[in-house]
Amino acid sequence: MSSLRLLLAGFGNVNRSLVKILLSQAALLRARHGVAFTVVGVADSRGAAVAPEGLPLEALLAAKAAGRGVDALPGVGRPGLDAIQLARELDYDLLMEATPVNLKTGQPGLDACLAALGRGRHAVLANKGPLALAFERLAALGDLDGRPGRPQLRFSACVGGAMPTVNVGRRDLAGARILRIEAILNGTSQGILRMMEQGVSYAEALAEMQRRGLAETDPSLDVEGWDAANKLTIIANAVLRRPTTVREIDVQGVTALTAGELQAAMARGEKIVLRCLAEWTGQDYTLSVRPTSLPLSHPLARMNGDEMGIVFETDITARQTLTTRETDPIPTASAMLRDALDIAAP
Amino acid sequence: MSSLRLLLAGFGNVNRSLVKILLSQAALLRARHGVAFTVVGVADSRGAAVAPEGLPLEALLAAKAAGRGVDALPGVGRPGLDAIQLARELDYDLLMEATPVNLKTGQPGLDACLAALGRGRHAVLANKGPLALAFERLAALGDLDGRPGRPQLRFSACVGGAMPTVNVGRRDLAGARILRIEAILNGTSQGILRMMEQGVSYAEALAEMQRRGLAETDPSLDVEGWDAANKLTIIANAVLRRPTTVREIDVQGVTALTAGELQAAMARGEKIVLRCLAEWTGQDYTLSVRPTSLPLSHPLARMNGDEMGIVFETDITARQTLTTRETDPIPTASAMLRDALDIAAP
Repeated sequence: MSSLRLLLAGFGNVNRSLVKILLSQAALLRARHGVAFTVVGVADSRGAAVAPEGLPLEALLAAKAAGRGVDALPGVGRPGLDAIQLARELDYDLLMEATPVNLKTGQPGLDACLAALGRGRHAVLANKGPLALAFERLAALGDLDGRPGRPQLRFSACVGGAMPTVNVGRRDLAGARILRIEAILNGTSQGILRMMEQGVSYAEALAEMQRRGLAETDPSLDVEGWDAANKLTIIANAVLRRPTTVREIDVQGVTALTAGELQAAMARGEKIVLRCLAEWTGQDYTLSVRPTSLPLSHPLARMNGDEMGIVFETDITARQTLTTRETDPIPTASAMLRDALDIAAP
Repeated sequence: MSSLRLLLAGFGNVNRSLVKILLSQAALLRARHGVAFTVVGVADSRGAAVAPEGLPLEALLAAKAAGRGVDALPGVGRPGLDAIQLARELDYDLLMEATPVNLKTGQPGLDACLAALGRGRHAVLANKGPLALAFERLAALGDLDGRPGRPQLRFSACVGGAMPTVNVGRRDLAGARILRIEAILNGTSQGILRMMEQGVSYAEALAEMQRRGLAETDPSLDVEGWDAANKLTIIANAVLRRPTTVREIDVQGVTALTAGELQAAMARGEKIVLRCLAEWTGQDYTLSVRPTSLPLSHPLARMNGDEMGIVFETDITARQTLTTRETDPIPTASAMLRDALDIAAP
């Protein structure tokens, strides 16, 4: 039996979903893999809760559901403590990093991850910010491939939720030369474009996505292409093994597209998608995120408004496609669990 | 640098493709993974060739291209030796098993694999026969998950070529309860059905697939559903962790379908596919291979005649789909390389 202590940085949708699935999968993880996880610390935006023997998970969820911070929990609450302090001082095995994305500084996720890895603790990220800005620094401290005796770094939740994008690209295509990656990696843009195809304007489609809870109040990261560019940056580093920051990606969003353009594309047997592209030119990869018109036979053109997907073309594996349909944060949290399990029972 | 010695059992399309990619990827495997493979033995249907320091790969390919057996190679040819004898007697690290599928006895692949694993050597299979008939026997000797100190058993080439079916199902969904798997795993049937949709009869479609080299002269394993059933058997064992032999699968092929039925399905917005299904009933999985009509929004209904695919639905990962388009044996051989690399550099 292997028992690992988790520190949760951030307690929004993703880490709360992680706690839910730690509860729902506990028996399976013990029986199938001989692994048990305890949560020894949690930090949200107000403070923290700490218990070396394991925090009461239902009580954590109940506190958040009632609108309270975890620092208000009797006995275990630690007002004023934050994720970075916990990552530096607490005794734990894995940092589960799901603080909000910050694309200017990567904080507080970046310092929390650097602290964990620097102390020889493993780090599992659902937060793209630190990776999009400082992949090389993190990968210098953390190992991506399970080498024994090294702190491990995993982030499969960052690129398409439960879709095993990074794992398939890095591991299953390990012996191949990747010639081209094409992907739809932003759900909000994909939903808006597929709605506009039905004749709805951009503004109406965005408003509808917001009503359904599928677009942020400030959707700019999504519709201007930067969320997709972050994900492509992570793919470039982890799958293409090309040191890259998000600033190198050529980015254009979907805000200037009209329903007319999308319908005209359909009339000529094509679909316009917000395509992430990495293409080998013989010397290097060109990287871009841009609205692109594709024939209907293309795997990305066959995807519905609630789907994301990625197409890999290599020298020896022909064309491999992954697609996901996810409508809540549970699958993203499941990818964090997948990473934790990969570290706990490699 | 890790150096592994391969024994190739069978030297048809798949293992010849493997030799081609061992040549084309050698520099990449050294540079990226620090791994070198040498081929120390090959057995085809006539005899064998053996060289402890490594066989000349170009000469092996040239002999076969000229219609000669490998036993005719000067200096290294061993007329009369077969794969089972080599597996029992030669000094090697990995058996690469790609002899023809035999669904009655599993031979000679089964005995070759049992010999290799019994001697503590690893086994990588592209041949479904031994697994469909004797999965439990093989998995009792060989480890599927990279546990150190144990002979490893891998077979990712058996279920959809380069599509990472088994790896995604077993590894990426390791913490999930699989509720349902649906898949198109036989390329010949898929090609025939998509052609019949255009109004071509079953016999004409089959003849056309044979002309293109995409269907066997005796296509019965494919069109009667048994090839797909073999693959579902392997998935049941390796992914669903349910001990299963192919005899337990409820199988119906595509031979009785008419172009009229396929076109009527299209007229009502559906597609008929040869669907592999594993469905959790609360107690056990029901397993079947059967022509099934699916709505066009279903991922399997969106696949073209040259594609295969699999859809996983679980309790925590929503709906994940893999699709592959392959038109020659190189991607299948690439899956054997993936497995060998997973063993060599885990």
